[in-house]
Amino acid sequence: MANTVQAKQADISITSCSYSRVLEIISNKWSGLVLYALADGTLRYGEVRRRIEGISQKMLTQTLRQLERDGLVGRDVTPSVPPIVDYSLTPLGDTLINTMTHLKLWTAEYYPHVEKAREKYDRDNGESGL
Amino acid sequence: MANTVQAKQADISITSCSYSRVLEIISNKWSGLVLYALADGTLRYGEVRRRIEGISQKMLTQTLRQLERDGLVGRDVTPSVPPIVDYSLTPLGDTLINTMTHLKLWTAEYYPHVEKAREKYDRDNGESGL
Repeated sequence: MANTVQAKQADISITSCSYSRVLEIISNKWSGLVLYALADGTLRYGEVRRRIEGISQKMLTQTLRQLERDGLVGRDVTPSVPPIVDYSLTPLGDTLINTMTHLKLWTAEYYPHVEKAREKYDRDNGESGL
Repeated sequence: MANTVQAKQADISITSCSYSRVLEIISNKWSGLVLYALADGTLRYGEVRRRIEGISQKMLTQTLRQLERDGLVGRDVTPSVPPIVDYSLTPLGDTLINTMTHLKLWTAEYYPHVEKAREKYDRDNGESGL
């Protein structure tokens, strides 16, 4: 019994650490959107930018560099004049997008239920609810 | 062709909105950990607190209330003296934990690859890399 409790506590600590780590990667909205944009295939810089509403050049450059550093996005330079720079998901990035697709489907299916629950909670608890 | 491009752009906008929404819920580290803690079954307040290293009473109360408002966690009060308060995942919370489990498994399997990629990137790009 004591062992079971200890094992569970250890598991939560590991979870805590893992969860912080995966959040590091996906909790940035722009990172998520760039990964989704590249899910359909290779894109040039300007194409990525056009597909993501509201992203600034600075933010896109920073996000792509971060994702390249994480090994999730590959950058391929063709040495023409001017050079052509293509971005695509790496095999590691592909594994993450599969997981993120689950999140996306969950949101599409269940977010309306969350909104309904919030309305009900606020109705039942008044302004002092939260 | 023009229609395809428009459809894709619209899809990215929808994604942007959905992604922000699901992040609202899961990007809080404590919300994630409370959901994981309740994944094994109903727990009393003190039990939840003992299972999550480093969470303060104030933060736990706030997190549980937020998750209750989102319809993800149910609160059941037994009117004894003192009252017994149990927390558990709602059916909606169960659907989210399934999705979050994918994220957890991804992190366990692939996070070491992200760390290796970062080391390589920093070696190749020096300090000016990011």
